[in-house]
Amino acid sequence: MSREIVLALDAMGGDQAPGIVLKGANIARVRYPDLRFVLFGDESAIQPVLKRFKKLASVCTVRHTDETVMSDDKLAVVLRQRRKSSMGLAVDAVGKGDAHGVVSAGNTGALMAFAKIVLKTLPGIDRPAMGSIFPTQRGESVMLDLGANIDCSSANLVQFAIMGEVFARNVLGVNEPTVGMLNIGSEEGKGNVTIRDAAAALRESGLPIKFHGFIEGHDIAAGTVDVVVTDGFAGNIALKTAEGAARLYGGYIRAAFKRSVMSRAGYLLARPALKMLRDRLDPRAYNGAMFLGVNGVAVKSHGGTDHKGFANALGVAADMVGQGINPKIIEELSRMNIEESPEPKRAAV
Amino acid sequence: MSREIVLALDAMGGDQAPGIVLKGANIARVRYPDLRFVLFGDESAIQPVLKRFKKLASVCTVRHTDETVMSDDKLAVVLRQRRKSSMGLAVDAVGKGDAHGVVSAGNTGALMAFAKIVLKTLPGIDRPAMGSIFPTQRGESVMLDLGANIDCSSANLVQFAIMGEVFARNVLGVNEPTVGMLNIGSEEGKGNVTIRDAAAALRESGLPIKFHGFIEGHDIAAGTVDVVVTDGFAGNIALKTAEGAARLYGGYIRAAFKRSVMSRAGYLLARPALKMLRDRLDPRAYNGAMFLGVNGVAVKSHGGTDHKGFANALGVAADMVGQGINPKIIEELSRMNIEESPEPKRAAV
Repeated sequence: MSREIVLALDAMGGDQAPGIVLKGANIARVRYPDLRFVLFGDESAIQPVLKRFKKLASVCTVRHTDETVMSDDKLAVVLRQRRKSSMGLAVDAVGKGDAHGVVSAGNTGALMAFAKIVLKTLPGIDRPAMGSIFPTQRGESVMLDLGANIDCSSANLVQFAIMGEVFARNVLGVNEPTVGMLNIGSEEGKGNVTIRDAAAALRESGLPIKFHGFIEGHDIAAGTVDVVVTDGFAGNIALKTAEGAARLYGGYIRAAFKRSVMSRAGYLLARPALKMLRDRLDPRAYNGAMFLGVNGVAVKSHGGTDHKGFANALGVAADMVGQGINPKIIEELSRMNIEESPEPKRAAV
Repeated sequence: MSREIVLALDAMGGDQAPGIVLKGANIARVRYPDLRFVLFGDESAIQPVLKRFKKLASVCTVRHTDETVMSDDKLAVVLRQRRKSSMGLAVDAVGKGDAHGVVSAGNTGALMAFAKIVLKTLPGIDRPAMGSIFPTQRGESVMLDLGANIDCSSANLVQFAIMGEVFARNVLGVNEPTVGMLNIGSEEGKGNVTIRDAAAALRESGLPIKFHGFIEGHDIAAGTVDVVVTDGFAGNIALKTAEGAARLYGGYIRAAFKRSVMSRAGYLLARPALKMLRDRLDPRAYNGAMFLGVNGVAVKSHGGTDHKGFANALGVAADMVGQGINPKIIEELSRMNIEESPEPKRAAV
């Protein structure tokens, strides 16, 4: 009963493209036997790599283009001069229905711009958001927005909550995921008007969402909720701050183990266990930011990741396509409107 | 050439008051022989403890009051009914000149409200900010605001930058501290109008501040700058997110060491080194949030800290008084006004 999932890949995006793109696809191909790829980019760079991966080549189609989006391209340049780039054409493929989703490790702003313009937003979504999965003390959670929207209205935040909940339920497989809104205190009166309005709107939406209320920064890693909702400014800062703190801690640990002969010996004994820890916190395992709310699946891989990280981004896209995330978001949104419209119900509250 | 430093203590603030307050004062007394304390609170709770610390008792004066600010008191209640509380009277003591600074582990909002109303803000400062020292890969830095101001104007952010720079130079002892503004990207065009205006104003201020420009979340723990400037919303979230991430990492490490007999043995060997790490990241070592910009020294200790943490908060207050932080902030601010006012200079830019 398997169904082909076709992903359009920007073969030229990322620091080590096209190598990591193709090697990543070769890993994902084994994990997801239904995956097919359309590779956009410089054929003379792509074909030599494909020659080395026969099985991968059998599930790939190559579409040549000379053009590439540069990592430092301004948005105006991208939209005027890079429409036929590997990234632009990969997004077009989704827009035309030639692929179910697009994955790129290139310029984030450019990918979001192409996604918005070509794929448009889902009905009921005003602005797409960037979301990401991250490790917590309880497992993993999803946070959005991570930087696509610096200023958000309360309606935007409510839409993020709905999209995040649908994602956690269907892609992370969480039963009745809890949703929390990032704030500077957990009490109801905390935060600015926008965030308080969003919380009130979510409570009154009539949707079967388990809204936990406001959460604070430390709740993110604690895994207090399955879905963290925030505007793109705070979300971007929170995500990067957490990465920085983890790096600081890791650096301290390494320094501690090097301190003496005894601690070096201790490291050797504990190494297998510490390796499991490293694997668990490996940023590559969480690579792949989802653009939620666009009419098509679009995933942004970190530009500096390797083939293993890129393979994980492909997995995120494959899961989103496989789980039919967008039809489910539309369904959930439509339910809210139905629940909210009858006047008597609101008056009765 | 030593000079007495008198601190007014809210003996009833914090989860374990007055015990941790007095035991903390007893530690600080040894570190800072010039410290004298005025203790505000329930005499019947304070005196039995003081009886056990004779040397501490010799540098303390006790001022009795029955009233206490509760941790869940609303601001309206605090201002109407808690003016004669241990916290209110301790702040009054600074206002009247009976003490140089006040330290409390009680209700943060109440302490900030008392500080603003009784002590007022420094000339040239529109709104005080909460700041805190935190550990980085390079040593330690200071960040402000941490939650006192949810919405900030660009003028507020510029003032935070100046206060933070003066603090880093005088209290942390950093020569020519660098200042960065927390944003979602390091390029000049990133972020909202407020933050871009603040950065431009700081560049054009003519002040001898080493402004690094925009920084991102991961730069906080990396120690990219000595002073991190942000509004209270992002700052609060960043600080708590970093704490949560460190706790997550610590929990994983502990779990890793427990995994096998080998890793347990490894832990035993590495224990002394790991203990140094724990000490270095001990949140108590960074306890004590400064209220910068009020006309007097006010420091908020974490409510759940122990006596060691409280002693560190007392140290922060003592250093701020000893280094004459407020006169130096005023001096720096006045320099900016002088530099900025002449029209020709601005036109010549």
